[in-house]
Parts: sequence; structure tokens; C-alpha cells
Amino acid sequence: MNFTHIFNVPLHDCDPAGVMFYGHLFRHAHDAYEAFMADRGMPLQEIFAAGKYKYPLVHAEADYRAPMPHGERIEARLSVERVGTTAFTLQVVFYAADGSEAATATTVHACIDAAWKKAALPDGLRALLTA
Amino acid sequence: MNFTHIFNVPLHDCDPAGVMFYGHLFRHAHDAYEAFMADRGMPLQEIFAAGKYKYPLVHAEADYRAPMPHGERIEARLSVERVGTTAFTLQVVFYAADGSEAATATTVHACIDAAWKKAALPDGLRALLTA
Amino acid sequence: MNFTHIFNVPLHDCDPAGVMFYGHLFRHAHDAYEAFMADRGMPLQEIFAAGKYKYPLVHAEADYRAPMPHGERIEARLSVERVGTTAFTLQVVFYAADGSEAATATTVHACIDAAWKKAALPDGLRALLTA
Amino acid sequence: MNFTHIFNVPLHDCDPAGVMFYGHLFRHAHDAYEAFMADRGMPLQEIFAAGKYKYPLVHAEADYRAPMPHGERIEARLSVERVGTTAFTLQVVFYAADGSEAATATTVHACIDAAWKKAALPDGLRALLTA
Repeated sequence: MNFTHIFNVPLHDCDPAGVMFYGHLFRHAHDAYEAFMADRGMPLQEIFAAGKYKYPLVHAEADYRAPMPHGERIEARLSVERVGTTAFTLQVVFYAADGSEAATATTVHACIDAAWKKAALPDGLRALLTA
Repeated sequence: MNFTHIFNVPLHDCDPAGVMFYGHLFRHAHDAYEAFMADRGMPLQEIFAAGKYKYPLVHAEADYRAPMPHGERIEARLSVERVGTTAFTLQVVFYAADGSEAATATTVHACIDAAWKKAALPDGLRALLTA
Repeated sequence: MNFTHIFNVPLHDCDPAGVMFYGHLFRHAHDAYEAFMADRGMPLQEIFAAGKYKYPLVHAEADYRAPMPHGERIEARLSVERVGTTAFTLQVVFYAADGSEAATATTVHACIDAAWKKAALPDGLRALLTA
Repeated sequence: MNFTHIFNVPLHDCDPAGVMFYGHLFRHAHDAYEAFMADRGMPLQEIFAAGKYKYPLVHAEADYRAPMPHGERIEARLSVERVGTTAFTLQVVFYAADGSEAATATTVHACIDAAWKKAALPDGLRALLTA
């Protein structure tokens, strides 16, 4: 399973070296995740409104292979790396305009219930992630 | 002249009230400006790379009429309000999913040269803005 | 009444010109407001937790007089400009390291109740703002 | 070696769950790094102005153990984990108000020269990091 989210590196994400500040990559990784969930018919805002579950991050990491300059068109490809009992792992690879890998972000999302206790992934989300 | 830029309100822009933090509106106003300039064939990164001129903000303001909730599809319509000798003014109106106006941002951009001195808008940019 | 909040311009707020991106100024204006409210014994998180009132922005504006370069020590001085029946106005002046004014941000905060209806400013907040 | 940087979780970093959005942690990790370097007499802006070296991130990761709620006072303790030939690794542990660990961020910074080629860490920085 694979989902593509495209953006241009905005000015406000670029530092004095003219390239994206490393920490801002995670905003774009999350944008890809939100777009993916909406595309699959389960937008995050509906999950939150339902109020039964939340999926806070327990781990996030990124490798940076090349700077992403201001204005560059980036193709972010999201894939589901792992679906566990109470957590799932996503990977987003960021491709530069020339097709090379500029960066990879990996995020681990835990399932918690309304009382912030660890919970099993609900069937609907599990089905979506393993489709 | 009018240009439309569309986005969904991302989670990372929303505060504990579940709606966009007011200050983040200006990032989206700038995204609309960047998309407009690229669409018109004069992307900001090429202006900066040329190194002759910059267009720093001298004034920015926004009116907020309705909260923009997480996930809402927003249509940002940019128009050129005024083209002066050494500055130009843009307006971006943010429309909610139901077509109502959620917010308006107005930004005044001054033209400065490589020495950060006020300069006349170059002809190419003037032509673009008044087209 | 006057309150001072100090910060250094962080790298992640600076754009390829080496100076603060204009929109990020409002994050710092809000930081000054939060620090002011906490200092006066009414931290925003307690207001939100109480759940009776919120103070969303209805207007924000800023004038930029000089670029704020990366690393510069900025003194942000907050003052209460106006206390109305259902809204209040704050002004934050940002002073550069040499004491000159680099920017001014003005924000208008409306009082709304739990149903997002306009409401009179509660007495406690009014007293705080007019002290 | 250890350096402490303190902040309160700002509203604009908090998402609809009322806690810091995970990606924003890296901005605070970088603020701690900037404050550390300035404290040690080598502020980042002077390194950049000198123009000989930059220290872009090649890897970043974070573990999140507990949510950081709006307004909470956080103590970020930075330590130098490793100083290699052409890179160094920092760790920032974020302590909640009750002294428990809320999150840890680890960042690997490569040394590159003005031509963006990998370079040996300059002696001054090496001395600072191993002091």
C-alpha cells in the first residue's frame, strides 16, 4: 500500500541556509498521514470527534540525505510499515524533484482510549491499514 | 486578478480549542502568495536566487470571522489590492467549506535591493501584478 | 501596565534572508501574552480548563520596521491597549538589541462563552487587565 | 557535560488533544542546542556568519513517554552523546514539572564545508563539545 502527497517546500520552512529546517519535516510527514487517512475514508478529525481513540506518537525518526531547497517540488510517499496489536508504524519517503531520496520519516503511533490507556487498534483502522 | 489556493486545516495548526491558531493563518497566506507567483511564472526562489531584490513584509493584518476547524477544506483566494511605486499589497480571503468567509489576511510587501534599500518595483513584477 | 518577555530569534524562525519570517512574529506575541497572564496569576491553561470562556482573536496586525536577524536578543514589551465590554486589545512592541523598535503586533481578543457566543469579560480578567 | 533550557509549553504548539504536537518537540530541542552554544561562547549565528562550516542534521529521533500539556513547565537537559570525526550527536531529555521524563530527542549533526562537502569538525567546536 502506498499513498503519494505532493508539496513545494514553502519559504517559511526554510532556514538561513535556504533549505528546510529539519524539524519541519515532521509537519509534512503528518500532512501526508492526514491526506492518506482522508483518502481512505477515515479523516483524523472524524476519529477525534468520535472521541473513543487517539493515536499519539510514541516514536518518530528521520534520516536526511539531501537538503530540500526552498520551492522544490517534493513527492512524499507514505507506506504502512507495521500494524501491531496496539500500535502502527508509518514511513514517509520524501523524493526530490530529480527522483532521488531526500529524507525518510518513520513514525510509531500508539492506540489509546479516552482515558489515555493503551488499547487494541479498532477493527476499522486495522482493516484500513492492512488493506 | 484572482488566484485560488486550497488546503485542509492540518492538525499541527490547531490548538486545544480544535481550531487553527490565529498566527498560523499567515503561513497559509504566504503559501497562497508563493503558489500564485509560481503559477505566474515567477517563483519566489528564482527571485531570491537572482539576488537583486527582496520583498519583505512591512505590514500584515488579519480579520477572523469564524474558527477554522481541524480538517476543514479551505479555499484561499488571493487578489492584488494595490501596486505602488516601491510596494504592493495582497489580500487573501479564506473561505470555509460552506462558502462563508472565515478570515481575511492583508499583507504589504516592500521592494528592497541587495543593500536592503527601498527600490522601485522592477518592471517584470509590476507587469505580473497588474496583469 | 507593562510586561517584558525576552527571547533570542531562533534559527527555525528565520528564512533564507537570515531574518525572522513575518508570520512567526505572532507566535512570539502570543508567548508574551501567555507569560504575562501566568505572571499575573491567571495562566491561559487554567482559563481553558475552567471551560467557561475562551478569548479567540478577531483581529491581528503587525508593522515591521527592521528585520530581526537570527540569534538577536529581542525584548517584547506587552501593554494592554483597550479593555472593552466583550473584547480587549493588546500591543506587543519588539525591541532590537540596540533598543530600536523592530516590530509592533496588535491583537484583539474577543470573549466567548462555552457555546462560542460573545460574552462580557468576566470581572477577574477585567480587573487583571485594568490593574 | 550538561546544559539546561527551560520553557513552558506554548499554546501554539498544542493540538486539539491539549498537548504538544510531536513534531514541535524538535524546535524546542534546537532551541536548547542554540542556547547551549551561545552559553559556551559560540552562538550559531556567528558560525553561520563566518561561513566556513554548517552542521546540518543527518538524523533525528524522539521517544515520547508522556504528553506535554499546554502551559506545563518543561526542563530540557542537553548532553553531548558523541563527538566523531565529521559529526556529533546531542541528546535532549525533556522533564515534566513532576520530574519525570516526558520525551527524549537525539540529533546527529554532520560537519560540512562551504561547498556542502563532509569535513572534519574544527578544533574549536571539538573542544567545546568535549569540554
